[in-house]
Amino acid sequence: MRNKKNKGADISRILLAHGDGGKLTHQLINNLFKKKFNNKILNELGDSAVIQLPLCKNSKLAFTTDSYVVNPLFFPGGDIGKLAICGTINDLAVTGAIPLYISCGFIIEEGLEYEILEKITESMAKIAKQENVKIVTGDVKVVEKNSADKLFINTSGIGIIKQNIKISNKKIVAGDKVIISGAIGEHGLAILNARGGFDFKSNVKSDCASLCSLIKKMLAVSKNIKFMRDPTRGGLATTLNEIVDVQSFGILVNEESVPIKKEIRAMCEILGFDPLYMANEGKVVAVVSKKDADVILKAMKRHPLGRSSQIIGEIINTPKRKVIVKTKIGGTRIIEMPASSQLPRIC
Amino acid sequence: MRNKKNKGADISRILLAHGDGGKLTHQLINNLFKKKFNNKILNELGDSAVIQLPLCKNSKLAFTTDSYVVNPLFFPGGDIGKLAICGTINDLAVTGAIPLYISCGFIIEEGLEYEILEKITESMAKIAKQENVKIVTGDVKVVEKNSADKLFINTSGIGIIKQNIKISNKKIVAGDKVIISGAIGEHGLAILNARGGFDFKSNVKSDCASLCSLIKKMLAVSKNIKFMRDPTRGGLATTLNEIVDVQSFGILVNEESVPIKKEIRAMCEILGFDPLYMANEGKVVAVVSKKDADVILKAMKRHPLGRSSQIIGEIINTPKRKVIVKTKIGGTRIIEMPASSQLPRIC
Repeated sequence: MRNKKNKGADISRILLAHGDGGKLTHQLINNLFKKKFNNKILNELGDSAVIQLPLCKNSKLAFTTDSYVVNPLFFPGGDIGKLAICGTINDLAVTGAIPLYISCGFIIEEGLEYEILEKITESMAKIAKQENVKIVTGDVKVVEKNSADKLFINTSGIGIIKQNIKISNKKIVAGDKVIISGAIGEHGLAILNARGGFDFKSNVKSDCASLCSLIKKMLAVSKNIKFMRDPTRGGLATTLNEIVDVQSFGILVNEESVPIKKEIRAMCEILGFDPLYMANEGKVVAVVSKKDADVILKAMKRHPLGRSSQIIGEIINTPKRKVIVKTKIGGTRIIEMPASSQLPRIC
Repeated sequence: MRNKKNKGADISRILLAHGDGGKLTHQLINNLFKKKFNNKILNELGDSAVIQLPLCKNSKLAFTTDSYVVNPLFFPGGDIGKLAICGTINDLAVTGAIPLYISCGFIIEEGLEYEILEKITESMAKIAKQENVKIVTGDVKVVEKNSADKLFINTSGIGIIKQNIKISNKKIVAGDKVIISGAIGEHGLAILNARGGFDFKSNVKSDCASLCSLIKKMLAVSKNIKFMRDPTRGGLATTLNEIVDVQSFGILVNEESVPIKKEIRAMCEILGFDPLYMANEGKVVAVVSKKDADVILKAMKRHPLGRSSQIIGEIINTPKRKVIVKTKIGGTRIIEMPASSQLPRIC
């Protein structure tokens, strides 16, 4: 009984940590939304809901939503608009879908400079055009000064999953390889840096990008991609924990093979952050069969967004539901779902 | 040149009025979003985007989004959760779609009582279940105290439009009838009243409801429904103006036939509001062929949400693009798109 209570039933207020993608977010989803909205499609908790259209038996529809509250609105490598469109495209793409249509809902604080909204709108339009998705419906709300922080954007997206694409984490077995498409931690540190207050100068840029064409290349070379996710809030550590959550396997990560740029590592050390928990906005983590791992890695490395792709670990039978890191000095440590946010409002 | 400038090019800041559904909202949509996101589907500016799925030629997909920032969160007749689900269902239904799947994105102010979120979630689940729609994907963000006002919700929805449903405002001709499904102004006044600050007590409740089953009845009796919209922000006056906007016809409304409850009329008179501009959240306005008007009206009156349905006017050849009201004393007046909001944050 006591354990049950400690698991989240005693929440009386929503905390910042409820929105950071870590434990409390998962608790909130499981203890409230999943229970209240209970249905098969929601319960999959995928990046996109996979829907078998009643009137269209041959293909599946992917449908996703995300609200963006990033602070500041502009940062090296992107802005809230680019982030929103890329994020929604990526949530569709990692499900194996071809992103097609996006909605956008703006919540604007009274007094926001028109120029800012214009710039952000342009940024959204640019990336949407480039990625061949259409923003087909939208909404604008304006609230009083101090009732919102400048601008929030919701984007929802729909895409089509072709009949021959069958990504399912149920196919994951021990020996499967875990691949990441590049160096981690850039988005989180770019946001932190953009907020100022630090003495050092840095050229770190957010990795914010659409993963659609990279993922298309991956799907073209293998039918044995079993899982994909973009490690955003909560970083790589959170995504790996999501993979093993309620599964009968674990993951063994080789710390040395996780790509991290020198500058990111140095900044993290100074600031006391673990790069494994830092947000990314242009990376994909994939679980693939052992036999196809090399051909997928090769395809990824040929893509501009996948040059630094690495096999970072593999699926193991025990311990179950744990992510174990083999450290550089030969020891091991468990990396857990983050208990609270390193940084709020990074997306 | 001067006219052009005055038409909206000189906006330097977003005002509350940009979000009230009136002129400035339309300017913002036309001068910014429509231009930047420019594509055929968006340009229709319907309540739902109507999408011909590339892999599904026989039916159409409806896709809509809305953010809800209503203040207060709870009001007589509903709450932000019920409002969001009903609003999204209604935006799909007025396009002739069967609402199927809904996404929801929560933006929560740090410190919000869990109980409030729970109640609202329950309210969403209840109406979704009742209306047979599934909430299949979602997102939670939490922002710092004073960076949002308690809770904002975005809901996006998708629905299927059956092959035999062909609603198009291009078929509207002079003589067509304009029907409304019941008395106006209740939602706007309920919100106003819930905010307090007035000396009089009132039992006015929001009309917040899903119009899905009412609209189904209407579509079952006629193939000559040419347009439907729920007159929310900006009220009936705004919806009627949207119907005639850039069209080669006008609307003549018979003021006496517009259903308004006595209490609503009295409150509006005291407060100096025009009920034609007050928001509704459970009413539909339809333009239908003259020959089918009576059979549609009859079907509507048989439905609990349509008991007070009325034919309130008709399409006229001249003046074009104007909404003319024939007043009770026999005169006429033009009702225009509202220039600024009567009440911010009513939905």
